Amino acid sequence: MTNDVRSKSMDPACQEMLRACEKSGLETAWDRLEKQQPQCGFGELGICCRNCNMGPCRIDPFGEGASRGVCGATADIIVARNLLRSIAAGAAAHSDHGRDVAHAFQLIVEGKAPSYCIKDPEKLDRLMKEYGLDSPALLAAAIMNEFGKQDGPIQFTRRVPPQRLELWKKLGIDPRGVDREIVECMHRTHIGVDNDYVNLILHGLRTSISDGWGGSMIATELQDVIFGTPKPLFSEANMGVIKPDQVNLIVHGHEPLLSEMIVAAASDPDMIELARNEGAKGINLAGICCTANELLMRQGVPMAGNFLSQELIMATGAVEAMVVDVQCIMPALGPLASCFHTKFISTSPKAKFPGATHMEFHEDTAGETAKEIVRTAIKNFRNRDPSRVQIPDIKTRCMAGFSVEAIVSALGGSLDPLIEAIKSGSIRGIGAVVGCNNPKITQDFGHIGMVRELIKNNVLVLTTGCNAQACAKAGLLQPEAAEKAGDGLKGVCQALGVPPVLHMGSCVDISRILVAAAALANALGVDISDLPAAGAAPEWMSEKAVSIGAYVVSSGVFTVLGTVPPVMGSKAVAELLTSGAKDVVGACFAVEPDPVKAASLMIEHIDSQRRKLGLA
Amino acid sequence: MTNDVRSKSMDPACQEMLRACEKSGLETAWDRLEKQQPQCGFGELGICCRNCNMGPCRIDPFGEGASRGVCGATADIIVARNLLRSIAAGAAAHSDHGRDVAHAFQLIVEGKAPSYCIKDPEKLDRLMKEYGLDSPALLAAAIMNEFGKQDGPIQFTRRVPPQRLELWKKLGIDPRGVDREIVECMHRTHIGVDNDYVNLILHGLRTSISDGWGGSMIATELQDVIFGTPKPLFSEANMGVIKPDQVNLIVHGHEPLLSEMIVAAASDPDMIELARNEGAKGINLAGICCTANELLMRQGVPMAGNFLSQELIMATGAVEAMVVDVQCIMPALGPLASCFHTKFISTSPKAKFPGATHMEFHEDTAGETAKEIVRTAIKNFRNRDPSRVQIPDIKTRCMAGFSVEAIVSALGGSLDPLIEAIKSGSIRGIGAVVGCNNPKITQDFGHIGMVRELIKNNVLVLTTGCNAQACAKAGLLQPEAAEKAGDGLKGVCQALGVPPVLHMGSCVDISRILVAAAALANALGVDISDLPAAGAAPEWMSEKAVSIGAYVVSSGVFTVLGTVPPVMGSKAVAELLTSGAKDVVGACFAVEPDPVKAASLMIEHIDSQRRKLGLA
Repeated sequence: MTNDVRSKSMDPACQEMLRACEKSGLETAWDRLEKQQPQCGFGELGICCRNCNMGPCRIDPFGEGASRGVCGATADIIVARNLLRSIAAGAAAHSDHGRDVAHAFQLIVEGKAPSYCIKDPEKLDRLMKEYGLDSPALLAAAIMNEFGKQDGPIQFTRRVPPQRLELWKKLGIDPRGVDREIVECMHRTHIGVDNDYVNLILHGLRTSISDGWGGSMIATELQDVIFGTPKPLFSEANMGVIKPDQVNLIVHGHEPLLSEMIVAAASDPDMIELARNEGAKGINLAGICCTANELLMRQGVPMAGNFLSQELIMATGAVEAMVVDVQCIMPALGPLASCFHTKFISTSPKAKFPGATHMEFHEDTAGETAKEIVRTAIKNFRNRDPSRVQIPDIKTRCMAGFSVEAIVSALGGSLDPLIEAIKSGSIRGIGAVVGCNNPKITQDFGHIGMVRELIKNNVLVLTTGCNAQACAKAGLLQPEAAEKAGDGLKGVCQALGVPPVLHMGSCVDISRILVAAAALANALGVDISDLPAAGAAPEWMSEKAVSIGAYVVSSGVFTVLGTVPPVMGSKAVAELLTSGAKDVVGACFAVEPDPVKAASLMIEHIDSQRRKLGLA
Repeated sequence: MTNDVRSKSMDPACQEMLRACEKSGLETAWDRLEKQQPQCGFGELGICCRNCNMGPCRIDPFGEGASRGVCGATADIIVARNLLRSIAAGAAAHSDHGRDVAHAFQLIVEGKAPSYCIKDPEKLDRLMKEYGLDSPALLAAAIMNEFGKQDGPIQFTRRVPPQRLELWKKLGIDPRGVDREIVECMHRTHIGVDNDYVNLILHGLRTSISDGWGGSMIATELQDVIFGTPKPLFSEANMGVIKPDQVNLIVHGHEPLLSEMIVAAASDPDMIELARNEGAKGINLAGICCTANELLMRQGVPMAGNFLSQELIMATGAVEAMVVDVQCIMPALGPLASCFHTKFISTSPKAKFPGATHMEFHEDTAGETAKEIVRTAIKNFRNRDPSRVQIPDIKTRCMAGFSVEAIVSALGGSLDPLIEAIKSGSIRGIGAVVGCNNPKITQDFGHIGMVRELIKNNVLVLTTGCNAQACAKAGLLQPEAAEKAGDGLKGVCQALGVPPVLHMGSCVDISRILVAAAALANALGVDISDLPAAGAAPEWMSEKAVSIGAYVVSSGVFTVLGTVPPVMGSKAVAELLTSGAKDVVGACFAVEPDPVKAASLMIEHIDSQRRKLGLA
């Protein structure tokens, strides 16, 4: 049994809770994955098509049965169409997040969202300048317009080096409005429309760019304007942040619009008083998934765990309320909550769940809703059954909040010291390690194995998402982790007092990594694809990650995936993605489940780029 | 063998060509469907989920294996999510069609598309009035804005009776901009977002309304403005329209923007001269799929066949060029074209095909591109191998072009005579029979079986799409077909000189049926759901049909599907769609593969509505 939980997660807190769940017969994602075995081979290879009612069709990968669907679609076409729909869904998720933030920003500017204010007016000024506009209202309108506009360009795409922009234009993948690109993905993948896998994938890249340099980047930039641009700070990560004697309110999901309000409500003296009256010592807030990253980097709120921790956190029996908005929220939480006193509270009109209490969030009444939610959690404290509480006593100190602005500031005002460190070889290159958990891989094993190998080899790691949380839990986000880095990187980190792994935020904040890459490339006068840099998503599972991978590669960054994407049923598509793309966008994907081998691929790439730039 | 082709198609021309294909070893959709047997039961039931890389997951319909996906999604959630993605794809296809037409309209108004003109200025005036605008340029901008706007309403949704609009508002399904609704479908179906099947399906209805009363209706209205509002005319249908001694140019797909230009180019005296010089007696144009419906109803161009005829038409060996744009174009045509001299020409940047010659169409150079395509066809005439030509000598006269305006005009200027006929019982009710072919059903058998039963029972049939072509081929679009109608309907048709089945156009022209239904309901002072009317898609296969079904039911029309939609894996979703929806939107679906039984369901519904309205 011990061996078994070790194969499920390398996080000792998760291991403890997995044992507890097994003991109490509580089902988790790992159990459900096991019950799904064997998973459908057609689906895994991407050669199953359900895009019309003549199907479902599937291609025989052994070449003995059907080689075409009813319409005549080959494996190449089916795989490419499925990939395009995944990119569309991922880009839609991110852009809808960006849209919600843009909408809130517009309401704030119009004075219609009294719970919010503008915390970074300097960034607001910079954005107005970038758009060539002189009022926040005009900026708000221009940004809202990025989603629905029928033509390009999307303003932030103009942040890329000129070479990259030229390439995109030449390839016809400089995106139009975000929504239009996504809708066109759905049209092209309809029966009898686009049946050329190259044409399909090029549109996929265009759509993904409208996410990375559009929807996601809008989310990041405006969240900074509204809630403040992150600065380095310290906090803690893992289930030990849950407090046995306090009201534990867990925020889970993605958008800080609600969760920031909950932070405010939870520190309201009236609320704290109410909690005390209910017998609790206070109100304790902690996050899961990207909501955790958002609150950590701006408010220092501790992180309870990443994607695969969500059920285990609830299973501690010490959670009064788990409040969710959108994305990566397991519907399994509903039935699980009913085994405890926990209130599972949904808040988005776009995301309801069986077994959840729906307390709908709207920007104009955000403060009140947040207070109502906090009150609900407090009132639920008395229902906690202490005999069922089990909180792993495991947590780790972490440093977070490395926005691009914070990095530049830490470097003394410009990227030059970083460039010098790269030129000198102290820093061999940059590795962006991001993405989800996936029970197909031992939780955090892919993340930590890769990051350790990278820093050992003097690769500075930029992290977001579930990787950031894995690193936090493993102690890699502490300045002391510099000890685990190679000598060059260690020296730089120690001089600056920063960890060798820089927490840059949530998944939409991969846009920060793009901005940093563009700034570095521009400073060096090269394209992003010339940088000694590589990306990785060692445990990816979501369609957002598919869109992210596509826009990172489209931006010129070699990217290694740790779980196999459903494209292997088409040799042509797989070759295009893992090799041919290099000749098209100057970067490609690799697939390597072994994290150390994957890190080696990244390091090889970085070394080859260094040679091309004439660096030692 | 004879029995076998009869089970594939009831169209004698198709039967002849199926025999020919079998003889020459040419593969068709029916062969490919056979090779797909057995089709995946999980996919057929809708309980297979590939929305993240923890999967693919599937639910055991027998309740012995997995009852949840890895995330915890149940069959209800998976089925609803899959349905939402289908609606999104269908709405995207239609709205992208509408968008292309709106874009062309804008260019025409700006004088940037010299090949086009405005053929129905009166309709243009009506639309400007409806939008409250006083210039075509403002109208063009306002209509383009319908796609990308972030909030509602979509203007044409205001055509519904006030009761219906109130209901939509109450349910929260009065749609915002078309693109936004589609994008939100993709967001909601992402892992961990919307997990409530009712909430998912309500958003599906909202999205479909933005198609029916948005994207599709925009396509219809602006096509009428540009190319003229259809008026009744006569033409011919089926493969016998292909001429052995002429250059045969087949236009296939959906948007009339290109095909109307080809009509013009093909009648250019220089082109006809060129054809004669190449040894042909002339240039013969014929259509497939909705392109055929568009050209038939405005130009009287004959129809070669419907969806399942496309390969068989190419297999006649007498097609010099098959020109396609978007939607329902089998990628199988590429390999098939290579067995003949036929040029398979793709024209849309959104739709390329293996084996096709790409001659890209743009509005500003439409005339020249059309001429180049016609020239390519002419030049290919000499490559035809007469020994391989086999054209079934089968064609049928048909009457088409029943726009709402044409119907009103035929009735003497108002809908009153129709209302009187309905009240008196001469016309028992209205049946809208639409949709695709699907090789799971003997081609046209579902269509014709149902339509014959309906008219026999005095139900006036409105038809579009592949059903319209099936009816045309079966002789039901001739005024003489009134003989096959019940006495009441026969009398009305004979008095007016119209067939008992009115050809209203292409699939986007289902919007004409919506407009007619709204006008009838408004004239009677009732909601659409109160009308003695029913819809059906006896042989549907495309995701557009899913969106159509959803918006027709959302508009209040009981609808019968002839092929089983992939929802049966969720009892809850199936019950909501086939029964619960009645209490929500006043209409629901039924599934009945037997066309006569399906017609009986429609007639029963019509009779029950008549009783409620106090009609005999």
